[in-house]
Amino acid sequence: MTSFESDYNNGMLPEILQRLTQTNSEKSTGYGFDPYCESAREKIRLACGKPAAEVFFLLGGTQTNATVIDSLLVGCEGVLTAETGHINVHESGAVEASGHKVLVVPGEGSKVTAAGIDGYMEAFHGDETYPHMVQPRLVYMSFPSELGDIYSAKELSDIYSVCKKHGLLLFVDGARLGYGLMSQKCDVSLPFLADHCDVFYIGGTKVGAMFGEAVVFSNIPAPKYFFTTVKRHGALLAKGRMLGIQFDTLFTDGLYFKAAEHAIVMAERLKGIFTRHGIGFGADSPTNQQFVVLTREQKEQLSTQIAFEVWSPLPDDRLLCRFVTSWATTDADLEALDRALA
Amino acid sequence: MTSFESDYNNGMLPEILQRLTQTNSEKSTGYGFDPYCESAREKIRLACGKPAAEVFFLLGGTQTNATVIDSLLVGCEGVLTAETGHINVHESGAVEASGHKVLVVPGEGSKVTAAGIDGYMEAFHGDETYPHMVQPRLVYMSFPSELGDIYSAKELSDIYSVCKKHGLLLFVDGARLGYGLMSQKCDVSLPFLADHCDVFYIGGTKVGAMFGEAVVFSNIPAPKYFFTTVKRHGALLAKGRMLGIQFDTLFTDGLYFKAAEHAIVMAERLKGIFTRHGIGFGADSPTNQQFVVLTREQKEQLSTQIAFEVWSPLPDDRLLCRFVTSWATTDADLEALDRALA
Amino acid sequence: MTSFESDYNNGMLPEILQRLTQTNSEKSTGYGFDPYCESAREKIRLACGKPAAEVFFLLGGTQTNATVIDSLLVGCEGVLTAETGHINVHESGAVEASGHKVLVVPGEGSKVTAAGIDGYMEAFHGDETYPHMVQPRLVYMSFPSELGDIYSAKELSDIYSVCKKHGLLLFVDGARLGYGLMSQKCDVSLPFLADHCDVFYIGGTKVGAMFGEAVVFSNIPAPKYFFTTVKRHGALLAKGRMLGIQFDTLFTDGLYFKAAEHAIVMAERLKGIFTRHGIGFGADSPTNQQFVVLTREQKEQLSTQIAFEVWSPLPDDRLLCRFVTSWATTDADLEALDRALA
Amino acid sequence: MTSFESDYNNGMLPEILQRLTQTNSEKSTGYGFDPYCESAREKIRLACGKPAAEVFFLLGGTQTNATVIDSLLVGCEGVLTAETGHINVHESGAVEASGHKVLVVPGEGSKVTAAGIDGYMEAFHGDETYPHMVQPRLVYMSFPSELGDIYSAKELSDIYSVCKKHGLLLFVDGARLGYGLMSQKCDVSLPFLADHCDVFYIGGTKVGAMFGEAVVFSNIPAPKYFFTTVKRHGALLAKGRMLGIQFDTLFTDGLYFKAAEHAIVMAERLKGIFTRHGIGFGADSPTNQQFVVLTREQKEQLSTQIAFEVWSPLPDDRLLCRFVTSWATTDADLEALDRALA
Repeated sequence: MTSFESDYNNGMLPEILQRLTQTNSEKSTGYGFDPYCESAREKIRLACGKPAAEVFFLLGGTQTNATVIDSLLVGCEGVLTAETGHINVHESGAVEASGHKVLVVPGEGSKVTAAGIDGYMEAFHGDETYPHMVQPRLVYMSFPSELGDIYSAKELSDIYSVCKKHGLLLFVDGARLGYGLMSQKCDVSLPFLADHCDVFYIGGTKVGAMFGEAVVFSNIPAPKYFFTTVKRHGALLAKGRMLGIQFDTLFTDGLYFKAAEHAIVMAERLKGIFTRHGIGFGADSPTNQQFVVLTREQKEQLSTQIAFEVWSPLPDDRLLCRFVTSWATTDADLEALDRALA
Repeated sequence: MTSFESDYNNGMLPEILQRLTQTNSEKSTGYGFDPYCESAREKIRLACGKPAAEVFFLLGGTQTNATVIDSLLVGCEGVLTAETGHINVHESGAVEASGHKVLVVPGEGSKVTAAGIDGYMEAFHGDETYPHMVQPRLVYMSFPSELGDIYSAKELSDIYSVCKKHGLLLFVDGARLGYGLMSQKCDVSLPFLADHCDVFYIGGTKVGAMFGEAVVFSNIPAPKYFFTTVKRHGALLAKGRMLGIQFDTLFTDGLYFKAAEHAIVMAERLKGIFTRHGIGFGADSPTNQQFVVLTREQKEQLSTQIAFEVWSPLPDDRLLCRFVTSWATTDADLEALDRALA
Repeated sequence: MTSFESDYNNGMLPEILQRLTQTNSEKSTGYGFDPYCESAREKIRLACGKPAAEVFFLLGGTQTNATVIDSLLVGCEGVLTAETGHINVHESGAVEASGHKVLVVPGEGSKVTAAGIDGYMEAFHGDETYPHMVQPRLVYMSFPSELGDIYSAKELSDIYSVCKKHGLLLFVDGARLGYGLMSQKCDVSLPFLADHCDVFYIGGTKVGAMFGEAVVFSNIPAPKYFFTTVKRHGALLAKGRMLGIQFDTLFTDGLYFKAAEHAIVMAERLKGIFTRHGIGFGADSPTNQQFVVLTREQKEQLSTQIAFEVWSPLPDDRLLCRFVTSWATTDADLEALDRALA
Repeated sequence: MTSFESDYNNGMLPEILQRLTQTNSEKSTGYGFDPYCESAREKIRLACGKPAAEVFFLLGGTQTNATVIDSLLVGCEGVLTAETGHINVHESGAVEASGHKVLVVPGEGSKVTAAGIDGYMEAFHGDETYPHMVQPRLVYMSFPSELGDIYSAKELSDIYSVCKKHGLLLFVDGARLGYGLMSQKCDVSLPFLADHCDVFYIGGTKVGAMFGEAVVFSNIPAPKYFFTTVKRHGALLAKGRMLGIQFDTLFTDGLYFKAAEHAIVMAERLKGIFTRHGIGFGADSPTNQQFVVLTREQKEQLSTQIAFEVWSPLPDDRLLCRFVTSWATTDADLEALDRALA
């Protein structure tokens, strides 16, 4: 069945498979101390315009969020996020598992805002009871946001400024970073992002890799024991070179960006198909996740031919449904959707 | 200076001091295995109408909340609360320190509601992504609520029913329980409360004791290792008899209730004083905490003679200020307030 | 350079690479809900002789140890292990990160023993202070042990009996399970193991997979929220089918066992080479890890041509060095070692 | 029954009871922001010869150990201790509850040694796998040790030097500090101790107070969020002045030292009584805890008249029994023991 369930419903980019095949019989030191990882780190630093950045490879998004946040906070410090933030809803309490409270700040839609953070911090320090409260230390945001929205360069820059004003760190979850950067609406480049946050990661899992996320400490040094913290979180891959090979390939000849761009093109065509069939959207997403409003009957009928995810019921009993394109979405996939909607 | 800062700004009830004095030269086994603790447990079981309840003595509210919640939840389970819930705001993340997420449910004012809990749980199980989410396991509410409000017998009963419907436990924070039960608006008795929740505690610290909270597992057995969990949380008093003596005294001749009733009478008189001086209230509290609205000038002037707490600024730049009576509030205190407002 | 550094210094078995290649263009549901995972689970149940076992796929050893242990213990419960146990030494406190204490019991060499566990438990319950102590709940052992030793069927059976006697669970870390089962000294079969512990895992990472560990709850049901706990630990692979494909391949036509057997044959030949060159062993290992004693000069000289790990200095200033074979060790590797020693 | 069970089997020093009585009707700000706490802090600084020390009051020993250690360590850092260390055995995993591993170092009897710490650290840094291990950060020792032994000034000084050499912090658990300092064998003074560790606490609970431990950051500043961490651990007393009053009294006219000295005198007399009756000791303790070896028959007979604790069985089936004196031990208590042994 044709599937728009997610951007992790597929395999890996053929270029990555090819590199894994070519190198399979080699032997190398484990845990990321191999030449492929070193080469990948160097290419990422270059792509970010940050020659001194420290780069680490982890395996998946929840793991990376929990590990990075835990490495930067002491116990009674908390992390600010939008209410819809992935760490707040869909990670089974992985951040709290290390003892840190997730603090919701008002934002716009699924995004945090400089004003929301500023208001929270001003009120916090004005409150005489604040020593009894969790101490805000870090802002978490994802790029694109949980519902596929993106931040403009100005928004990002304002958020980073307000973080600095209040002594907060800024951490950007880039599990779908490629799809954000390649959005037609996006005026943020990778170096701009790297320059306007303290630490972020470049998502591989959802953008063509088999698995893997590259954490980049772009404006602060990595915490002293970051490697050990990665191990402690069970996030250290024994055959570490598998991560190096994947990211080295992704950052050779712009593969990461090309793969993401393909998904954006397909998402725009997918939007056109739904529109043509008179189906509307629950959110205006310029990235590879599209949130479509279906009646329960439409949902039933469509799901006999197309796999997709029901995101949430709406107040009027219709359903918000998610359709996701990826580097692996084909013309045939879109044609099947078009036919199924006919 | 006359102080309405809190109900823990005082010493202990004279009856307690007298018992401590009388027994001071005795020797006894530590950690709560003494005759005073045993006697106090028995009196509490009797007052609750729960002859089989298990009763434990801890030292303070935050500690008790964190210990009880930790003892009842496994890692990925969370606790539902009103947004203003003490565990959500004023405990420095003590619940998260044991790895548990605090989940906010919609309520009314500072109270949780049966409808709010029901709606949350219905949506939760309808959401296909719920295995990726923190699993709701327990409802936390305080009686009175964080802003001094109380629950009617019907409200409490409905909440407990909805908890049972969804397999949730109900835990009632009674740090100020006496003041709630003795409120003129209250139709909940101690046995009714004990019958309509799984576990609750009877606050001593704020109701006449020097310190101490009595945890009552009234409708469920205590978790297998509760004693060890208390120790692990640093909540086990070596000279445990000091807790037994205090609670034994509080539950002799209804002292706990008389002490609380005094505070309620004084709170009603305090309300009258503010009203007489044309000062209004930010919340309608039938208990010993009164939330009064002052201009910044009024606040400045009044605080030269009276100690009280600024709770939060209001949107119109006036200040919500808290005045708390207790078993120790005197006629002279009220007269001083009356004079200061003149 | 020829490397005997580890059994994770290589790629993946060609059969696995082939299956990944064949299936790469497919799309499937994430998180392990795909047909490959289902097939792999079924084959593992069959190989274990446990048709009702629950099987889960995680990514690496430390992660698996921490997740399984956390899922089975409440806060104040601890895990018993040999002093050399991987969880006690080489996992950066991943078990403690979830709040659980690792308790060392006396054993023999790197193995736990039924007598050691029994003695610990007898003393524990005899100690009147035990409510103040961490409550033993689970025994952790690895098969083979940390230093490559194996347990006989009788030893394993005795350990499981003593666990049952004291209400303890038995968890077997099988990161190198294949190499243990295929050891010439081993009289334990996979079904026997599955029958003589509560939960164990079949290591893929070190036995031919790219990554992956298959957790088998063979004699107890999985804890209610195990899937959510896996997610919470960051141990849930988005592209879950990659684990299914690997384990399905490993458990087709006995590939897992053949791959492990090769390593054992090579380890025996490696032993012969060292013996022939007059070099002795620091431990008698019947599996794929060999611990050799070298002078510092020998170590310096050998490491110019051969990669291996210095395990620890010895009291006489010589060095205990580890040489590991794997399914990927070749004749050429052994010849290179032979030449280097000449 | 006459009791030598513990030094927390009694009430409080009469001087403390008197001060509590005198001040009971006052009102004051909570959480330690009252004049009594301020006065007590100042007297403690003076007694320690550390005018800049930061002093905090907590309630009990386990709580204080867990809070101080958690405040000084990040997740993957661990704490070194003797095997018998209270945090390693008798605190229900309170240190692990915050995620920190307790690492046992070789020592002498129940004491850590400079050589043991040095050896551990030298080996640690020599081990190439150390990034996979818990990072040692702090040494925990108690004064007196778990079995009543004391450290000489030279031993303490050497330990602190070796800590500095390896970048470790030194934390001294002084739950029974008074009894250590007043031991006839002791050449350590309070200022010397304060000068030869980073942080320590002065135990009140076991030395005449009703409860309370005074944490003194004598050579390092308190961690930035120490107050919030105290709250988070449930270790913040609402009626904080009760701690201030107790410590202010203890540090007025040397009461703390006089009370402890009395216990030492009584312990020496108790030793004499046992010796006279031909009963030997399992450890040579110069403080208020005496460890006596009894046959099971002797134990049965004696315990009909005297309360004491069985510490542990000995290999020869005799029992190691603990007898503890305190500031509250009377001539009559010793005479009762003497008669009971006759």
